[in-house]
Amino acid sequence: MRMADEAEESVPALRYEERPDGPAVVLLDQTRLPAEEVELVCTDVPGLVGAIRSLAVRGAPLLGIAGGYGVALAAARGDDVAEAAGRLAQARPTAVNLAYGARRVEAAYEAVLRAGEGEAAAAVRALEEARALHREDAEACARMIGHGFALLDEFAPGRSLRLLTHCNTGSLVTGGQGTALGVVKEVHRAGRLRWLWVDETRPLWQGARLTAWEASRAGMAYSVLADSAAGSLFAAGEVDAVLVGADRIAADGSVANKVGTYPLAVLAAHHGVPFVVVAPVTTVDPATPSGAGIEVEQRPGGEVTELTGLPSVGAREPGAVGGAGFALAPVGAPAYNPAFDVTPPELVTALVTEQGVLRPVTGEGIAELCSTSRGEVSRSGNGMMNS
Amino acid sequence: MRMADEAEESVPALRYEERPDGPAVVLLDQTRLPAEEVELVCTDVPGLVGAIRSLAVRGAPLLGIAGGYGVALAAARGDDVAEAAGRLAQARPTAVNLAYGARRVEAAYEAVLRAGEGEAAAAVRALEEARALHREDAEACARMIGHGFALLDEFAPGRSLRLLTHCNTGSLVTGGQGTALGVVKEVHRAGRLRWLWVDETRPLWQGARLTAWEASRAGMAYSVLADSAAGSLFAAGEVDAVLVGADRIAADGSVANKVGTYPLAVLAAHHGVPFVVVAPVTTVDPATPSGAGIEVEQRPGGEVTELTGLPSVGAREPGAVGGAGFALAPVGAPAYNPAFDVTPPELVTALVTEQGVLRPVTGEGIAELCSTSRGEVSRSGNGMMNS
Repeated sequence: MRMADEAEESVPALRYEERPDGPAVVLLDQTRLPAEEVELVCTDVPGLVGAIRSLAVRGAPLLGIAGGYGVALAAARGDDVAEAAGRLAQARPTAVNLAYGARRVEAAYEAVLRAGEGEAAAAVRALEEARALHREDAEACARMIGHGFALLDEFAPGRSLRLLTHCNTGSLVTGGQGTALGVVKEVHRAGRLRWLWVDETRPLWQGARLTAWEASRAGMAYSVLADSAAGSLFAAGEVDAVLVGADRIAADGSVANKVGTYPLAVLAAHHGVPFVVVAPVTTVDPATPSGAGIEVEQRPGGEVTELTGLPSVGAREPGAVGGAGFALAPVGAPAYNPAFDVTPPELVTALVTEQGVLRPVTGEGIAELCSTSRGEVSRSGNGMMNS
Repeated sequence: MRMADEAEESVPALRYEERPDGPAVVLLDQTRLPAEEVELVCTDVPGLVGAIRSLAVRGAPLLGIAGGYGVALAAARGDDVAEAAGRLAQARPTAVNLAYGARRVEAAYEAVLRAGEGEAAAAVRALEEARALHREDAEACARMIGHGFALLDEFAPGRSLRLLTHCNTGSLVTGGQGTALGVVKEVHRAGRLRWLWVDETRPLWQGARLTAWEASRAGMAYSVLADSAAGSLFAAGEVDAVLVGADRIAADGSVANKVGTYPLAVLAAHHGVPFVVVAPVTTVDPATPSGAGIEVEQRPGGEVTELTGLPSVGAREPGAVGGAGFALAPVGAPAYNPAFDVTPPELVTALVTEQGVLRPVTGEGIAELCSTSRGEVSRSGNGMMNS
């Protein structure tokens, strides 16, 4: 199903549908982007697990929501809910959000059963809980977007902005409009986006493939660039602020995010450009005291030295990817491929969360932020997944 | 012809051969690297022009040598030398070295003719001149390598080094061992290379494809990395020095080089790591007063947003490349794709030339360097080609 003609700016990366032939979780197949906009209709949990494993759906918050809807789907079909939750929780071992979403909805289902209200009532409750999870994430995005927009307006009152972002932090990875990219969208809606600079984000191209796709869909003025071309933009005074997300924030305010974030922070500091991190409070991991304690996942070198798995223009079979194998380096060339890097708090101008803006970013501020955040959602958004 | 079994570390990117079936310019086909090591045998000027146009041979100094040997080849075959020189000079319009090499050898040929010594003697002289051009470039490399090695030894006396480089500056682009990569090779030969970090060098992958190939051939310990992963290496203290080449140096010491050089200079300064530029004196353009005066070529956006023209593993037909077309961004996505960036002199720890080391890099030092350099070679190495 192609959706290119739809005028709406928001991309439904994931939704639960009551269809004539039964309930389904409908996903935008992100492995086909940007070449094609194809939806996957998952009518049972094995189908959804397959979609998760193939990375058709990805991004920590969105995976949590997928896990929740998956359990609701099993309940609606009358399948074994505990088994379904277990399969979903383990579909990607490092995806803590996935397990969180699945287990949370399973718990809601089980509570109704224990109260003796029967499976039908429990299934209704499961779907309610999944929708609540989805809604909470969208609301957190909306609050971050509001705070982020106000901060940018403080930096440049009433002026139009040239923003630079890295990786993808939009509606393809969250239940709402996104975090950093959500703020960019709000600037655009307000008619104040002069230009969006989109880092391609090697090695997995999340910027070129996904952020550019969202920017294009929203009608923004934007350009994709090789990550290392950002330096020229700073030197030419073409960047008014950098907006990025976060995968994990240590107790001292150090920010782990997609590799390539730290060089942007150094460049921004060198040129006096605000460097703003937009992430939910749940991204803070109080158990990690400082940036030095963040263990950075080393990914397979082939992601750097070979090109495989990209959607080939013209591939029409579901799941067909260009697996021809382009060698970018000598066969067997060793690669250094960290998934993340760590930006120390002194290089972060401000941290925008759903609770408000922390500026400057200090350990005391982080501690205060955590103490005021709600416990319920506190595991959502954690985890060092390579999204 | 595969050369993988050859033990020699030096790669003959280009040579002139007297073969049983006549003279020829023999080139390593760089469009096939790193997947395959294939030599192209050019027995006449049209063949060589085709190889130049297809980028089988590239890099400013090497193109100058190719132009020179091409004219010698025409002379040896008894072809029209003036016409051959004209065709070679125009094979790539922006390649000033190519025209310089062709015209220099043509002039040597014509001088002998004017002296009445006949075409055979003129052809011998033409080949001598081409070989002299080749030798001069190799000698300049050797001198740069000596000075660069001494400088590194001053930074870290007797210690082994972890070096980071960008783009390709080795024997694939010069008549010798290279400039920045030549210094790395010398460190390796001295048993003091602990690790070579090879930036992949988006968008055209000269690091992953060519530098990694030279590093692998030389038996170095090395890793390829996404350009933006260099930040993590600096932060972890894993880089002892950065070595890069230069495409043009302004009179104030600003260095134009492959895009991605400037962010490395900022990172190096931030972390107190020496940032060393290795380039012949001829790279200095006294007519450009400062970095602001360097006009940076904007390249086609498709180099960033699409993948075409990479050698496909298993392609066996000469010139066969993987033109399947991988879309990295939405169709028609605009891109910002500067070929170069400019590093101000205050971020350059030292400039290593064949005349010696300039440290610090200042306008006065640059002026002195130019006044002591020889006039003869002074146009070789110039030009803002995207190599």
